[in-house]
Amino acid sequence: MPFETQLSRCADLVEARLTRLLAADKPAPDQASRGFQPTYRLACAMRHAVLGGGKRVRPFLVMQSAALFGVPYEQSVTTAAALEAVHCYSLAHDDLPAMDDDDMRRGRPSVHKAYDEATAILAGDALLTLAFEILCHKATHDDPAIRMELVSSLARASGWAGMAGGQQLDLDAEKIADASALTIDNILHLQAMKTGALILFGCTAGTILGGASQDERRAWIDYGQNLGRAFQISDDLLDVEGSQKTVGKAVGKDDNAGKATLVSLLGVEAARAALAQSETDAIAALDRFDDKAEPLRGAARYMSRRQK
Amino acid sequence: MPFETQLSRCADLVEARLTRLLAADKPAPDQASRGFQPTYRLACAMRHAVLGGGKRVRPFLVMQSAALFGVPYEQSVTTAAALEAVHCYSLAHDDLPAMDDDDMRRGRPSVHKAYDEATAILAGDALLTLAFEILCHKATHDDPAIRMELVSSLARASGWAGMAGGQQLDLDAEKIADASALTIDNILHLQAMKTGALILFGCTAGTILGGASQDERRAWIDYGQNLGRAFQISDDLLDVEGSQKTVGKAVGKDDNAGKATLVSLLGVEAARAALAQSETDAIAALDRFDDKAEPLRGAARYMSRRQK
Repeated sequence: MPFETQLSRCADLVEARLTRLLAADKPAPDQASRGFQPTYRLACAMRHAVLGGGKRVRPFLVMQSAALFGVPYEQSVTTAAALEAVHCYSLAHDDLPAMDDDDMRRGRPSVHKAYDEATAILAGDALLTLAFEILCHKATHDDPAIRMELVSSLARASGWAGMAGGQQLDLDAEKIADASALTIDNILHLQAMKTGALILFGCTAGTILGGASQDERRAWIDYGQNLGRAFQISDDLLDVEGSQKTVGKAVGKDDNAGKATLVSLLGVEAARAALAQSETDAIAALDRFDDKAEPLRGAARYMSRRQK
Repeated sequence: MPFETQLSRCADLVEARLTRLLAADKPAPDQASRGFQPTYRLACAMRHAVLGGGKRVRPFLVMQSAALFGVPYEQSVTTAAALEAVHCYSLAHDDLPAMDDDDMRRGRPSVHKAYDEATAILAGDALLTLAFEILCHKATHDDPAIRMELVSSLARASGWAGMAGGQQLDLDAEKIADASALTIDNILHLQAMKTGALILFGCTAGTILGGASQDERRAWIDYGQNLGRAFQISDDLLDVEGSQKTVGKAVGKDDNAGKATLVSLLGVEAARAALAQSETDAIAALDRFDDKAEPLRGAARYMSRRQK
């Protein structure tokens, strides 16, 4: 089965699960008629932020790696949905005027354009909170110690030392007048936090759910770190080379902002070489695993060749 | 010991714990000199949002109720700190221009005024995330099942069916042209979500940590619901009657906005009567507990008589 088909099948499964998790009661008629709709507008904005789009790369990583450790489908799809809720919260907040100020996301209006800024902030807050609530469900795993490890790991990946901290660094970096003051190490560090940490969680959640050995976990961390790097370099390349129609959001923004990226520091050719190296290293990290890891090797190849 | 002294001693303990939990490394000199400060600005904003102010009512509720069930100090202060982190994240977000647009908080500039909007959004996000990370610490409780119940309970109290949902309702309510279209039930429902849910968590966290019986839990839920109502009515009364200097933030905002509150619907006198009834009911809920519950009875009295 081609990689894109596998990815899209997984996306459908996660979409269905997220739809169920985000189902909320319609307002009672007497309240709706008064214009007072308990949680209804917020739930709609949350669904807008999450449903109907996205490649669902992070959920794919959870479900495929979990399958390698014999994790039941119910557990991996629930964990995948929680991770995607965190990812979508971060998009809703990053798109805000005070942050990256993006009107479009996945070819549709971003949450604050479809609703308003306050609702976009609250929808993001509520999605982040919901992710942790989902991980507490028994469906995630029977053993509370395992659920606890997932909550702890996702919180560290998303918080001040992970995704949120990386987004702050990214905003700070834009304010540095001389972009060349940033070193390649600075940028790698920033990207490892901003996008790498969540991808790494996606690659290691299966080892937590499946009780993998320390050795196996190390292999997945190695894979996840290289995959995250490949993802970010390809994202930076797309920003320079992609078209808005293909990518589904504004492109050329980093370049126009004079923002330092690996591409601006290394040039396009060297960035392509670094991308190829990350792909090779990610695939090599899975050497010990047999054919069942092929979808994950496919993910590494996909990262370096994607057009959007 | 007078109630205010008890409250302020507890605030000092929680402040010390939060200071420790929010301690982050200073940037490495070579990075600082380049203007690139990993997580430093974000950590500063998080500390601004949390430290150096606040009555710490919610932590007080956790620690006093936990003490009744013989919960060790280390566990209750950690849980109290997590709850306060959630409360302070909600203040940082609520103060944003897109939400309540408040420049002052606790007599100091709100986070977006002291830093900027993007940083205030991220600091709130990171504080919410940190709260769940803190609850995962072993210091919170040895048993992961207990930690799990705390995470789950705090997530439900803060999310779309709790605090975040209540804030959305509150914003929606302001947009209803005819404020009298809102019923008292609508307002009670809104306030139970917006502020009541987190106070209720504060009142029940001790029963989770201490393994209280179902009967005892019900008593604390009864107490917490009445206390939350008292807190909100007194807040609405202060908005009408308080002075900015005493309260430490802008007052008269609800009234100027033509916003429906229990006070605007019932009038000041009837609101005062409802407040007194909530105080009485909260105190009655603790009838079965002996003198050790006195600080919690004090909290109920304090709610209805506070000047800020």
